Amino acid sequence: MISVVILGNGNVATHLYNAFSKAEDITVSKINSRNLESITDSDVTIIAVSDDAIQAVSKSIQHRKGLIVHNSGAVDIDTITNERKGVFYPLQSFTKDKSVDFNSVPFCLETKNSEDFNLLEALAKSIGEKTYKINSEQRKKLHVAAVFVNNFTNHMYKIANDICEKNNVPFEILYPLIEETAKKIQSISPIDAQTGPAKRNDEQTIKNHLENLNLQQQEIYKLITKSIQEN
Amino acid sequence: MISVVILGNGNVATHLYNAFSKAEDITVSKINSRNLESITDSDVTIIAVSDDAIQAVSKSIQHRKGLIVHNSGAVDIDTITNERKGVFYPLQSFTKDKSVDFNSVPFCLETKNSEDFNLLEALAKSIGEKTYKINSEQRKKLHVAAVFVNNFTNHMYKIANDICEKNNVPFEILYPLIEETAKKIQSISPIDAQTGPAKRNDEQTIKNHLENLNLQQQEIYKLITKSIQEN
Repeated sequence: MISVVILGNGNVATHLYNAFSKAEDITVSKINSRNLESITDSDVTIIAVSDDAIQAVSKSIQHRKGLIVHNSGAVDIDTITNERKGVFYPLQSFTKDKSVDFNSVPFCLETKNSEDFNLLEALAKSIGEKTYKINSEQRKKLHVAAVFVNNFTNHMYKIANDICEKNNVPFEILYPLIEETAKKIQSISPIDAQTGPAKRNDEQTIKNHLENLNLQQQEIYKLITKSIQEN
Repeated sequence: MISVVILGNGNVATHLYNAFSKAEDITVSKINSRNLESITDSDVTIIAVSDDAIQAVSKSIQHRKGLIVHNSGAVDIDTITNERKGVFYPLQSFTKDKSVDFNSVPFCLETKNSEDFNLLEALAKSIGEKTYKINSEQRKKLHVAAVFVNNFTNHMYKIANDICEKNNVPFEILYPLIEETAKKIQSISPIDAQTGPAKRNDEQTIKNHLENLNLQQQEIYKLITKSIQEN
């Protein structure tokens, strides 16, 4: 049995709490990080607050027993001031009202003391399947990479949506292409999966496309086309 | 029964041929566009050649009977010089050795004469489910939008892959996030689905991210971040 306390009230805190509540061999409670005086001991404490607040919360529970972890992709392990510390980073995009299948979520784990790793891995395995040992340096890079495949990719969708709306074309026509593009790179590396006018150096099509875009879209189109061609 | 002749030897020609071969009420043959003299009459002729070659092939079958269509996203219907003409554009990314589920492929259809539309729609429905009436102007915009959600998105994956490889992090950790990002916009519009440091205007994280990128990656990171913030 592993006992867990989650500090925080955000999406990640809520989704983790719901998952641990259903897991075998786990007892879990969730507490607003402003009510720290009332919390009982636990094997693991998850600081599930915004990046900026992690250090302050850690300091406020400085003498707490057990393993103290945060779940941020961008924050160093040493931001936690407790001695037994770690990182429990579920690499997924969490939306408030959308349920999460933790079996498909990769857990990126790190502990300061190697003897704590098994505990954190057991905790992840209680709700998920995939765990990775990722140190703080690697995690920072992974977080940048995640911005490209999540936020920036979503912005490509947003521009496409704008183009469709402006021209009375249903954006849903593009859903299957979006899905296929996302799936394809699981069997072919992105560089080999690339197609299209930039890759083919099809100048006439590129010129035609640019004529259909506004200035900001043109700037993005040109820069990514150049980057595809130089790679 | 609809008879179809496909002119061409590329991926789309092959995938369409395989699908029509299995369809009920369709007879299909596929011919290299260099052997045009040998082709028999058909209800529909699909010119499935590269964009640049469509007009020449059309001219070489100028007096052919039936409906003549191409399947390009970027080429105007009037590039076909025959009188009964149309466009049969399956909006999907086709890979040589990867089978295609046409039931999920949207067919963007256009005919010069309205009385030909039902024929083209019946042909699409024989192998697929989703058909859309899309004129040449709309199709051009859709083709630009497709570049953003396919080629440019794939380039975001490529950059993420580069970052992972350089730092000994398995790229596969990002697969679930990539899939979730692609699925999410089917229930939430891309602008509402956006999260991350650009959206939050989190300057410190943006600064940290830029330090981990090479010059070209930085340029792309800055431009897309700016575009997210201005939208």
